[in-house]
Amino acid sequence: MELFGGTEVVAPEGGTMRGLLRVGDGFADLGTVDPRSTPGLPGAAGHGGDRKAWARRQVGLLGVGLGRQQEMLYAAATGAAGPDAPTSAPTTADTGLERGRPGRVLLVLQAMDCGGKDGTIKRVAGAMNPLGLHIRSFGPPTAQERRHGFLWRIRRALPPPGYVGIFNRSHYEDVLIARVESLVPEATWRARYDEINAFERELTDAGVGLVKVLLHISYAEQGQRLLERLTDPAKHWKYRPSDLDSRARWDDYQAAYAEALARCDTDAAPWYVVPADRKWYRDWAVAHLLRETFDDLDLGYPAADFDVAAERRRLCGD
Amino acid sequence: MELFGGTEVVAPEGGTMRGLLRVGDGFADLGTVDPRSTPGLPGAAGHGGDRKAWARRQVGLLGVGLGRQQEMLYAAATGAAGPDAPTSAPTTADTGLERGRPGRVLLVLQAMDCGGKDGTIKRVAGAMNPLGLHIRSFGPPTAQERRHGFLWRIRRALPPPGYVGIFNRSHYEDVLIARVESLVPEATWRARYDEINAFERELTDAGVGLVKVLLHISYAEQGQRLLERLTDPAKHWKYRPSDLDSRARWDDYQAAYAEALARCDTDAAPWYVVPADRKWYRDWAVAHLLRETFDDLDLGYPAADFDVAAERRRLCGD
Repeated sequence: MELFGGTEVVAPEGGTMRGLLRVGDGFADLGTVDPRSTPGLPGAAGHGGDRKAWARRQVGLLGVGLGRQQEMLYAAATGAAGPDAPTSAPTTADTGLERGRPGRVLLVLQAMDCGGKDGTIKRVAGAMNPLGLHIRSFGPPTAQERRHGFLWRIRRALPPPGYVGIFNRSHYEDVLIARVESLVPEATWRARYDEINAFERELTDAGVGLVKVLLHISYAEQGQRLLERLTDPAKHWKYRPSDLDSRARWDDYQAAYAEALARCDTDAAPWYVVPADRKWYRDWAVAHLLRETFDDLDLGYPAADFDVAAERRRLCGD
Repeated sequence: MELFGGTEVVAPEGGTMRGLLRVGDGFADLGTVDPRSTPGLPGAAGHGGDRKAWARRQVGLLGVGLGRQQEMLYAAATGAAGPDAPTSAPTTADTGLERGRPGRVLLVLQAMDCGGKDGTIKRVAGAMNPLGLHIRSFGPPTAQERRHGFLWRIRRALPPPGYVGIFNRSHYEDVLIARVESLVPEATWRARYDEINAFERELTDAGVGLVKVLLHISYAEQGQRLLERLTDPAKHWKYRPSDLDSRARWDDYQAAYAEALARCDTDAAPWYVVPADRKWYRDWAVAHLLRETFDDLDLGYPAADFDVAAERRRLCGD
């Protein structure tokens, strides 16, 4: 084993990452997951002593594979659309959920403030071709969005076939902040768990590879990261005074997360809790979750829909 | 000088990249630009002998700086919007061109088939944070798009303030393929040069840093790359039989490009021709063009719009 972890992707120890991180039956309390733990990480014999350097190197190697799989996904959608199909993309019009369309992947990232959503996107998505990414962030709904059901803006933000979508926050805010801050009556947010499950079932039925991830940090780690944002002038822009108001309601948010995860963890669309106090572990775990999702899609490059030999003659005869 | 080019960004030799690559006064013929030339590349004393490895390493270093400048651009837009602004982004609704809004950058990439647009995006944009990128590809207009003027879909695809937009093809197709393939009457495409200049003036007046790049490859290099796509099954999906029809009209396209560049090179929105037969030079040149554009914006991290000391007390007193 080389110092920085070899040149091949090493599988997680003890099972698939999805198996190791999925919220279990009867899950009810985030307190049972240690934000500093590292499920699946090989022991010292596997990582050669410096597990942080090893994991970073592994993320780089995983990124190469993710980039290739993402290209195959994109190629399948482009090829199936036919040679003269419009290539304008991504458009909001092309997100229909008819069955039989080429696959797509959607990574849903949720976390408390400072949980590492942006950093995860930078590290993990940064390894893929930006042309094939469809990243959408969700903040407080606009006036127009509030005139529709809570899933309206979510549907419009879905990745088109062939794309890897990333949701930086998501429809889960509508059972998290909406609940903790009493933005809607309890009966309203309570009804949303079933609406979410039905919606996600529709997504997975349409061939969307859905990966729902909670980046799980500790109260202490959040405090440390907020302090960094208040200390480094280059990070002031990431800080909002309202972050401390949310922090004051930490336990309420943890309870809201726990219920959302318990109610909306389904076999079609499971929830994964990634311990995220250690950034290098977080990135490594999310990269593996994505890899396992891609593997399920059983991707390959599409066969040519033209006569290759004839085209070669056309080209070389000129 | 280290073997792979040191650890600092080296400026182009002989002037700025923008100065070296801008189409000159009286430009009329792409034949005057050698697609294998390397304007601005330092001599052997500068790159240490292996110029390809040197340039690749430099692109990596340039990418770090581009990533930082892109973050500053994003931070300025986020900060100026205020702490409670919706963060839903990017939306098509938020692309207004009122003056005084935070800056944005728009890289317009044009090229013949196989010219390297996708590769450039992967290499150069791949160095930036995907969260702050707004990439749009333009193919043949849809039925809906054809019911509007040719700039309608372009306006809808502009990056919101704070974002780095990349157009993979653009409104220039409306004076290129539209002309060569006679998709519209001559009077129609002829009128578009002035429309484009007025539109781009509107963009730059609104603070959009516009970088228009033609990736200029040779007929021989295109043939080589098409052959690769026909030879490697993993690249078949990138090939379309219609590529050879366009290739048969190479001279017509080169003439259409030459006139578009001559007519739409303005001081507000200059055109740059990047010799692109050598991919490592192409990436290096485009990274420098972007860097010089960012430098013009004179970016910095925004000052806190809250009382930093008071927030620290709030945080640490809890």
